Amino acid sequence: MKFTFLGTGAGMPAKERNVTSMALSFPEYDGDLWLFDCGEGTQRQILYTAVKLTKLTAVFVTHLHGDHLFGLPGILGSRSFQGAEHPLELIGPKGLKAFVETSLQISGTHLHYPLVIHEIDSNGKVYENEHFIVHACELDHGIQSFGYRITEKDQPGELLVDRLIDLGIRPGPIYKKIKEQSQVILPDGRTLETAPFIGKKKKGRHVVVLGDTRPCHAALKLAAHADLLVHEATFNGQSARLAHDYHHSTSIQAAEMAQKAEVKQLILSHLSSRYQKKEQHELLKEAKSVFKQTYLAHDFWTFELPYQQRS
Amino acid sequence: MKFTFLGTGAGMPAKERNVTSMALSFPEYDGDLWLFDCGEGTQRQILYTAVKLTKLTAVFVTHLHGDHLFGLPGILGSRSFQGAEHPLELIGPKGLKAFVETSLQISGTHLHYPLVIHEIDSNGKVYENEHFIVHACELDHGIQSFGYRITEKDQPGELLVDRLIDLGIRPGPIYKKIKEQSQVILPDGRTLETAPFIGKKKKGRHVVVLGDTRPCHAALKLAAHADLLVHEATFNGQSARLAHDYHHSTSIQAAEMAQKAEVKQLILSHLSSRYQKKEQHELLKEAKSVFKQTYLAHDFWTFELPYQQRS
Ligand SMILES: [Zn+2]
Ligand SMILES: [Zn+2]
Repeated sequence: MKFTFLGTGAGMPAKERNVTSMALSFPEYDGDLWLFDCGEGTQRQILYTAVKLTKLTAVFVTHLHGDHLFGLPGILGSRSFQGAEHPLELIGPKGLKAFVETSLQISGTHLHYPLVIHEIDSNGKVYENEHFIVHACELDHGIQSFGYRITEKDQPGELLVDRLIDLGIRPGPIYKKIKEQSQVILPDGRTLETAPFIGKKKKGRHVVVLGDTRPCHAALKLAAHADLLVHEATFNGQSARLAHDYHHSTSIQAAEMAQKAEVKQLILSHLSSRYQKKEQHELLKEAKSVFKQTYLAHDFWTFELPYQQRS
Repeated sequence: MKFTFLGTGAGMPAKERNVTSMALSFPEYDGDLWLFDCGEGTQRQILYTAVKLTKLTAVFVTHLHGDHLFGLPGILGSRSFQGAEHPLELIGPKGLKAFVETSLQISGTHLHYPLVIHEIDSNGKVYENEHFIVHACELDHGIQSFGYRITEKDQPGELLVDRLIDLGIRPGPIYKKIKEQSQVILPDGRTLETAPFIGKKKKGRHVVVLGDTRPCHAALKLAAHADLLVHEATFNGQSARLAHDYHHSTSIQAAEMAQKAEVKQLILSHLSSRYQKKEQHELLKEAKSVFKQTYLAHDFWTFELPYQQRS
């Protein structure tokens, strides 16, 4: 799983940070691409990355504030213009459909692919494909704002080829059957229990991407034991009052959430443009003092999440 | 009148050219600011210029294609966030209101200034302030697309102070009356015909900004004898067929329009991203071979239009 941060700022674009968007791609699978949020200018940010817009299959919108949404109509049109014809799914709060349909209609944008818009009406599963399930859970941000938990399905273990060859079972179509069935009849008539010839299951990864939010129980529950948590840090540690008033979190609150939820790694994003380089460094430092495995995202930064070693 | 080109590309943003927007400011007057079109990312482009978003008083939208429009909701929100409280007027084709209102409503954007949206229903005057009148005229672009003619009101001539002092009329409130009335009674009882004491009227400037269009009679009529014409040049001179099919103009067609309309200067903008630096230079060269006073806009380029010497 590869994360590409396309915009890591809050509210308004700044020279250094564009408004929020993050791409998630899956080089270990088929090269699908997802976006989490799509602030104004996201399609231009993409031009400076390895992200291919035509690969896009799903956009998860956390909430409908402009800094997370206003780049979406442009993305939809350009994906079509670039020749994509396979379906695209949009997932987000109620209002998403009206915005997208009005934008496409008044601008005369005709998409050459099927667009499916799924407005979330309650917490729970919102997306599933061969490898992943995504659940949404409502947070605390004034306007309806969702966090998403991406759960990778466990991968079956590898075939233990050495052991099979020791038994005189050579590679061929039978290997596929051994992988898929608990018992197989071998060509020589023997019956084989397959379990001893299959390695340990690979446990799927868990990633949680939160929309803008105050610290809240829903976030804690959604993030529990995740391998990676992507959390907003609009304000620095001293600004808890401000963060509360504007329905946001501080860097320290994000780190405390990571700690309480016992996640493995934390990425901070969505910084207010009030913070200059030096203050951004402070903001990371104070978060790390609470939760060591913390990273601070910046525009165009990429992060790869390998399979996790689990006990 | 000072033009700042914020985006000079067509269709989709490119690294070199963002999608279309142009700012027009009036340093000779009160520092008002207008925008012509507002493609996605315009508010971020502004950060690299001297343009002050809080000064914005009017946005003229030529047509509702996304590359001219999708930056507008972000501009509206940021203008409010930056503290502007004076009214803002939006002028554009039917559909503008639905798009703007839906965008603001679903994103929970509350503006701290009055927003007036004027949808154009027929050719004619669409805007007037102390110094300028703006007329709109529909062009030929498939979707409804307007050109705007900005007509500066003639400026009264300067007071010829030397002549007044020769007559013993010293500076004071009487000067204002002399400037404004054709006849005044002086403090000593004399009656003064004021005309001989007022310099020559300054003729107002005429600027025409066209939306995307094929060459058409409406454009020719609107542009007649303008001091400056801003015209799209989506395609190069050889691509007249392509331009026709996509309801656009070539560089040569733009130059021919400037020549036939007998304008003083032509600025080409809205170039397709298919053209690299060298081809852009060719495109300008071929336009200049038809109409010498041609400029090619690029992002962040500024152009000042002084008062014109007229016979
Ligand atoms: Zn936000
Ligand atoms: Zn256009």
